[in-house]
Amino acid sequence: QGILERLDAGEIVIGDGGFVFALEKRGYVKAGPWTPEATVEHPEAVRQLHREFLRAGSNVLQTFTFYASEDKLENRGNYVAEKISVSETVLMEIRNKLINLKFGREIIKFVLTDKKEVKAAFQKQLEVFMKKNVDFLIAEYFEHVEEAVWAVEVLKESGKPVAATMCIGPEGDMHGVSPGQCAVQLVKAGASIVGVNCHFDPETSVETVRLMKEGLQAAKLKAHLMCQPLAFHTPDCGKQGFIDLPEFPFGLEPRIATRWEIQKYARKAYDLGIRFIGGCCGFEPYHIRAIAEELAPERGFLPEASEKHGSWGDNLSMHTKPWVRARARKEYWENLKPASGRPYCPCMSKPDGWGVTKGAKELMQQKEATTEQQLKELFQKKK
Amino acid sequence: QGILERLDAGEIVIGDGGFVFALEKRGYVKAGPWTPEATVEHPEAVRQLHREFLRAGSNVLQTFTFYASEDKLENRGNYVAEKISVSETVLMEIRNKLINLKFGREIIKFVLTDKKEVKAAFQKQLEVFMKKNVDFLIAEYFEHVEEAVWAVEVLKESGKPVAATMCIGPEGDMHGVSPGQCAVQLVKAGASIVGVNCHFDPETSVETVRLMKEGLQAAKLKAHLMCQPLAFHTPDCGKQGFIDLPEFPFGLEPRIATRWEIQKYARKAYDLGIRFIGGCCGFEPYHIRAIAEELAPERGFLPEASEKHGSWGDNLSMHTKPWVRARARKEYWENLKPASGRPYCPCMSKPDGWGVTKGAKELMQQKEATTEQQLKELFQKKK
Amino acid sequence: QGILERLDAGEIVIGDGGFVFALEKRGYVKAGPWTPEATVEHPEAVRQLHREFLRAGSNVLQTFTFYASEDKLENRGNYVAEKISVSETVLMEIRNKLINLKFGREIIKFVLTDKKEVKAAFQKQLEVFMKKNVDFLIAEYFEHVEEAVWAVEVLKESGKPVAATMCIGPEGDMHGVSPGQCAVQLVKAGASIVGVNCHFDPETSVETVRLMKEGLQAAKLKAHLMCQPLAFHTPDCGKQGFIDLPEFPFGLEPRIATRWEIQKYARKAYDLGIRFIGGCCGFEPYHIRAIAEELAPERGFLPEASEKHGSWGDNLSMHTKPWVRARARKEYWENLKPASGRPYCPCMSKPDGWGVTKGAKELMQQKEATTEQQLKELFQKKK
Amino acid sequence: QGILERLDAGEIVIGDGGFVFALEKRGYVKAGPWTPEATVEHPEAVRQLHREFLRAGSNVLQTFTFYASEDKLENRGNYVAEKISVSETVLMEIRNKLINLKFGREIIKFVLTDKKEVKAAFQKQLEVFMKKNVDFLIAEYFEHVEEAVWAVEVLKESGKPVAATMCIGPEGDMHGVSPGQCAVQLVKAGASIVGVNCHFDPETSVETVRLMKEGLQAAKLKAHLMCQPLAFHTPDCGKQGFIDLPEFPFGLEPRIATRWEIQKYARKAYDLGIRFIGGCCGFEPYHIRAIAEELAPERGFLPEASEKHGSWGDNLSMHTKPWVRARARKEYWENLKPASGRPYCPCMSKPDGWGVTKGAKELMQQKEATTEQQLKELFQKKK
Repeated sequence: QGILERLDAGEIVIGDGGFVFALEKRGYVKAGPWTPEATVEHPEAVRQLHREFLRAGSNVLQTFTFYASEDKLENRGNYVAEKISVSETVLMEIRNKLINLKFGREIIKFVLTDKKEVKAAFQKQLEVFMKKNVDFLIAEYFEHVEEAVWAVEVLKESGKPVAATMCIGPEGDMHGVSPGQCAVQLVKAGASIVGVNCHFDPETSVETVRLMKEGLQAAKLKAHLMCQPLAFHTPDCGKQGFIDLPEFPFGLEPRIATRWEIQKYARKAYDLGIRFIGGCCGFEPYHIRAIAEELAPERGFLPEASEKHGSWGDNLSMHTKPWVRARARKEYWENLKPASGRPYCPCMSKPDGWGVTKGAKELMQQKEATTEQQLKELFQKKK
Repeated sequence: QGILERLDAGEIVIGDGGFVFALEKRGYVKAGPWTPEATVEHPEAVRQLHREFLRAGSNVLQTFTFYASEDKLENRGNYVAEKISVSETVLMEIRNKLINLKFGREIIKFVLTDKKEVKAAFQKQLEVFMKKNVDFLIAEYFEHVEEAVWAVEVLKESGKPVAATMCIGPEGDMHGVSPGQCAVQLVKAGASIVGVNCHFDPETSVETVRLMKEGLQAAKLKAHLMCQPLAFHTPDCGKQGFIDLPEFPFGLEPRIATRWEIQKYARKAYDLGIRFIGGCCGFEPYHIRAIAEELAPERGFLPEASEKHGSWGDNLSMHTKPWVRARARKEYWENLKPASGRPYCPCMSKPDGWGVTKGAKELMQQKEATTEQQLKELFQKKK
Repeated sequence: QGILERLDAGEIVIGDGGFVFALEKRGYVKAGPWTPEATVEHPEAVRQLHREFLRAGSNVLQTFTFYASEDKLENRGNYVAEKISVSETVLMEIRNKLINLKFGREIIKFVLTDKKEVKAAFQKQLEVFMKKNVDFLIAEYFEHVEEAVWAVEVLKESGKPVAATMCIGPEGDMHGVSPGQCAVQLVKAGASIVGVNCHFDPETSVETVRLMKEGLQAAKLKAHLMCQPLAFHTPDCGKQGFIDLPEFPFGLEPRIATRWEIQKYARKAYDLGIRFIGGCCGFEPYHIRAIAEELAPERGFLPEASEKHGSWGDNLSMHTKPWVRARARKEYWENLKPASGRPYCPCMSKPDGWGVTKGAKELMQQKEATTEQQLKELFQKKK
Repeated sequence: QGILERLDAGEIVIGDGGFVFALEKRGYVKAGPWTPEATVEHPEAVRQLHREFLRAGSNVLQTFTFYASEDKLENRGNYVAEKISVSETVLMEIRNKLINLKFGREIIKFVLTDKKEVKAAFQKQLEVFMKKNVDFLIAEYFEHVEEAVWAVEVLKESGKPVAATMCIGPEGDMHGVSPGQCAVQLVKAGASIVGVNCHFDPETSVETVRLMKEGLQAAKLKAHLMCQPLAFHTPDCGKQGFIDLPEFPFGLEPRIATRWEIQKYARKAYDLGIRFIGGCCGFEPYHIRAIAEELAPERGFLPEASEKHGSWGDNLSMHTKPWVRARARKEYWENLKPASGRPYCPCMSKPDGWGVTKGAKELMQQKEATTEQQLKELFQKKK
């Protein structure tokens, strides 16, 4: 059964988590460029992460092809799209265990702005995916609805189901198009599934999808809803999301969501009518498992990885200390307000931005490259 | 060269990180029992984590045999020690890449209290490790120095170098023996390397090792110093460490250390004279990489995984937004006070404990197992 | 010169602070009823507070007649309006030092809902104020614009200038009328000065006045703007303001604004074009002094109390410790992020409200009145 | 009855609060110099504050003579000790309402270091107090026990009961003399009452007095215990107390204790055996009332100001909103963790100090006096 048949039948489809962030922490992706050369260089590491998401309950495994358009790879580094196809081969191994398998993630906006060129680039990527016979296509991480519409227009030509998600919050896209209007344009362009991914925390993202749903209802359009937010708390974000937070990308740890917070997100998303529920940056396998466990009553089964996880801390019930045993209950974890252990740090940050950082350029010029340079030279020698 | 030769020559030895916590999040270890059956059940997952720590700069890879004593495994689950030897086989593959390889982690205190029985259990475990010809032995995670001394006495019979670490803070062991006295007793029993692991954050742990060092100096004894702390901020811990914090083990996310905080720890540990520097619960591969990067000037080389990591955020220098580029410098990350994104949560917690939780037992009895039971049945059926 | 002549000439008029909160802490007002019987019972205490605000820079001293309508006093306690006139006598003493003197604060909404009755009550209060020949009238603390309009209609009959402020935030009044629309209705009813008071922090209140200003501009109406916010930080308020915060009214201490935060507010208010700048609950004399000091360059003079206050901490420049001396500068206090000293407390609270507190009634019934009852009996005996 | 007879009989004696801080906020004392010229310049303001503390339950009213030694006044400003005697005249009015009246506060350490000179200065101050026939004497705010001993030696010659309090924490005086040893030396010198005042929060101060009590017990000495802490939370203080915190003295607002926190302090102090319980900087009249209300069951009566204060929020029981009514109970306020409303601020600060602020001097030199100078000139002109 394809993804649309499943969603039409009312099934819940669980997405996967954030590859670039997870692999950065494991040592295989470079923050900044964020390119997916690990697919070729260290396929066993990519494969293991896919395996973990699958085991945690993901029904969909996205190809690890973020920023893999030719121009991006050339711009950033030294890989070309054809090499990326190795990634698909890797995935085939575990494909038989998958309900659905998808490929996608096209981001071109920073480099190309001409409609024709952009569409040509999408076309090129699409060809690779078609050769591999993916189940459906996701166009994701768009800040401007116009570009997302171009992507959908190209992808729908394939005849495969098309999902499209934007990296926006309740304030809408970078040109001020509201979430409701974005959804309407994407569905009109041919997307069967619409929603958001990345840039904002689960609570904010569900709110954005709520606005999309209202927009579709007002326009009497129908589509399936999808949500793949950050696993970071970002109540202090501005319109452009977590990239502008001073902690991005190397100081986000205190914002990481607990499994229980993800369960709350899964429930909230489900209650709103979202049926494609996954995650983006910050989502580790145990976060995906939390979605699958929260929705186990509705789905009728638990994921494989729950073998190693009692629901709501149940596995603490045999601990030697009675006060740790007392934590083996839903009410405890549901109500816990986890402390940061950082009394010298604030709870919220002011996002950076054009106005805020007039001095940014100057700072960069002043930057003393001493130790950094020294280390780089060492590294070059080693290579 | 063996570990003692290296340490004697003034080399820095970098340990690995926390297997049970990392594998719990990846879906292979059950919190509560914490037993290492993944070694047998999912060797590829264990192997991948070993590979990542190695790549991040670890010189030592501990066998994944925590809680693998016979009585513990029987008590907790259904694995026996002989099966664990599979873990060693797995490790052999990557052994040629390692500077040192060690095996260890014996915790018996909860089950056995008789000296003779305890020593017999240590003996049994030792035999497995000797058969595999490990490079040296670590006895770790002791709350009572008496038991740690028994372990060292058994292990030194092997002729291998012996390291011993306790899971204590500056207040000393559970019977009130000071860190200085603990160190003295361990060295007198035959340990060549002493220090602490687990239970407390890096800052507290370095302070505890400082007290050990002073104790040894006062007693005119010599030993190498070792530190493998948590990667969680725990300034609010009581004497028994992070297990008593209300967030243990499923709400610790906001306490996770950033890579920069780990660099500060590595520097502080080095400055105190600690030369075996690693981590315990919460340490992910990128935390180990942070140790290796901080001490790269002293060691003269960077770890393999630094290929995917510019030091001090250097890799952000080509970001499209100037204010993100302005983060590509040491001063920025060194001084960042990362926000929690959780304004409704406190910064510190009061640890639980005997006095605090008189009602714990009652709570457990009241516990309604509804959803939990329901889920378990589903899971049983699925199996 | 009257208040309108002054405002028309571009002068800044500085209001006073929060009588009920300040006198509650001094022991003369009961939180809950909040009635102003202190005017009669302890006139020296009221007079002293007036003296302090005057000395701090206030150009306007409001009569201490909050909740002094007949029905309110009868409902709450045992004072009748005629007694309140004593308050005026008290004020006459210091009147010659005042630029303007005003009387006001009519709150009837909780008790009366009939337009005729409400207007009759306003009429009755007005008579007292007219007998005392006040300089102008303020109708304040309205949650519903409809009632505020009634008040203005009654007051403008007196021929005195009328100011009207609502206790609303950017979301508007309790029936959803926007701040802009509220301002338009009040000006159309005859108010010369409009704005907000109480319920929200300075930042939020200035934002609300900004929306009022935009509303007036869109309607091509003119009026002077006024702002008398809380001296508490309340970013977590809901639509109904600080009363719904769990800390109201006895746990608000950590939210108290510093003098420097009030200076920022004064500047922001001034920059927006607000010229009647004062405070409400939480404002102590030194907060009013902060307004007067911030705007001293524009006004050309400092208040009397600045004799005891170096601007921007200047008076620390002779401290014995150099690091305290280093605090004697504007940049220091402007950028200070003051710590709460409460690591076990959160930074924000969820407001209470109808939905949240279903159990409120039950809780009240369960309330054990033991110690309280005991204390009350002691107190009765003593009386 | 004198103070010693009362304490010997087991009575609780309630002190007053912090004059310099309260009067600074009211506009009569200059932070930095902190001298008490308001006694002469604005006696009505000083008298009103005395009246409020009295009404709140204080049994002791200290003369407002802090920093009133001749050398200090000359050093700081232009008042001499003889003028201060006016303060006494003011107090006489209300004396008949007082159980005890005391005079004191001698701080000379910054200016004089010679024992003979110091004693002569104490002698001079004593003469004024003897002429006014005070009930007993308090020597307070000593950082070095040696100097406190000199003061006690001079004061006991008067034949009046002598109390002596130091501004130290659990780490002891500035030369490292432990609290226990300090207490022993003071009692041996002739003090009948010993304890601490200022510099640390209630919790820390009670802990320090506990150490004093243990020291006296070990030395088999007897004395009454006294505690007059800050009303600020200062868990992050170093050895020298709150002066080194970056928020001192103009950003301490978020640290102000609630009335309920003061009730906890009063109970804790009482339970330890402290019977002279009062406050220092930050204590406002309602904080003193909180002490009197907490200990009302033991004392058998409530203070006058409780007429305007239902215990434990009882006065909220008639509020119109049910969720505010639900706050009218002890359990609610006892357990409230009050939010700061400041999500961009931390919970704790690093104290400043010699090491930390190498750049302090430079900063002072760079200090641009622009606006400040402008304001001062305006002020001078006005005078």
